[in-house]
Amino acid sequence: MLFYKYRFSLGMHERLKKHLSKFADPLEEDLGSLSKVLRPVKVKKKDFLLRQGQICKYKYFVVSGFFRMYFINDKGVEKTINFSIEDWWLADFDSFGNQTKTHLFIQAVEDAEVLGVSRSDLEEVLTKSLELNRYFRAVGERVRIADQRRIEYISDLSGKDLYRIFQSLNPDFVQRVPQYMLASYLGVTPEFLSKVRGLK
Amino acid sequence: MLFYKYRFSLGMHERLKKHLSKFADPLEEDLGSLSKVLRPVKVKKKDFLLRQGQICKYKYFVVSGFFRMYFINDKGVEKTINFSIEDWWLADFDSFGNQTKTHLFIQAVEDAEVLGVSRSDLEEVLTKSLELNRYFRAVGERVRIADQRRIEYISDLSGKDLYRIFQSLNPDFVQRVPQYMLASYLGVTPEFLSKVRGLK
Repeated sequence: MLFYKYRFSLGMHERLKKHLSKFADPLEEDLGSLSKVLRPVKVKKKDFLLRQGQICKYKYFVVSGFFRMYFINDKGVEKTINFSIEDWWLADFDSFGNQTKTHLFIQAVEDAEVLGVSRSDLEEVLTKSLELNRYFRAVGERVRIADQRRIEYISDLSGKDLYRIFQSLNPDFVQRVPQYMLASYLGVTPEFLSKVRGLK
Repeated sequence: MLFYKYRFSLGMHERLKKHLSKFADPLEEDLGSLSKVLRPVKVKKKDFLLRQGQICKYKYFVVSGFFRMYFINDKGVEKTINFSIEDWWLADFDSFGNQTKTHLFIQAVEDAEVLGVSRSDLEEVLTKSLELNRYFRAVGERVRIADQRRIEYISDLSGKDLYRIFQSLNPDFVQRVPQYMLASYLGVTPEFLSKVRGLK
């Protein structure tokens, strides 16, 4: 299903170094060992990195494009849990961590490039490097903060306010997301969202 | 505000070792350096570890008892974000990580004991120990999985189904939580919850 269409380039190495250096102090050795286990993958718009019933075998670093994660509820309705953009890690963490079957879908919303790493490869690298552990701990904390905010917002706010906050936090990104998908994320109907955006 | 009423005991050391060993392979040296920066604190039922407007200076490991984290919305209604029980870490991760003022409250629901650590002390310890980084990364992933599930449930389920799932996942814990607090967590009224539980 996945095609490794391009090799890990020097440009990618530099980009990864810059990104990791925001959260830790990686040595060249750390970058080398991480690069070795990261597999570059190109994904076409609407293709899936993961489907319900599969085991999430890879965790992905988003190089370009973006993804949505969703499930289909008992009534057959798609429920969008989150979006993953450039420089974020992407996986069903439950399925990846426990190697159990997922009920989630991860789909590319735009043509995308990711770097995938398997659980065993990642664990092996992490057994040896303090700085890579610091890095993954720190990006995990960033996710925790984002999740905490999302839980607060959806516990409390109306669809209208959710949209306004989402827009103010992600002014550029909001233009890239199809209306029906954003509506699913916000828990409102596309018609309602359309009204709120003043498009009708 | 916080009272260090008891010293870090040998029993506590053993308990921490057992807990950490579930997620990493800590050396005695790691346990020693972590123990040195952990401050045991006893908290009375209904007392606060954190209040709106403060900076979350400590991250807490719950030894006994449990806590709820909530905020007060624009309408003056308390919204419970989560509960933290034994062997979980507790903080407003946003306020703790960025040392900004919080809008959250963290309150003890029962008499409790926690181990608190400041951000600078924790960072210093983590600069030196691979295994402690592994541990905090792994417990962070556990939190991520719990958050992901919570986002799915509250995006999709009715109050009734939320209660049933919460009860099936936490059969013992559900007995310890006051009704109004559980209702706030599930986003329903206490009256509704009471009906669902068949208490009325």
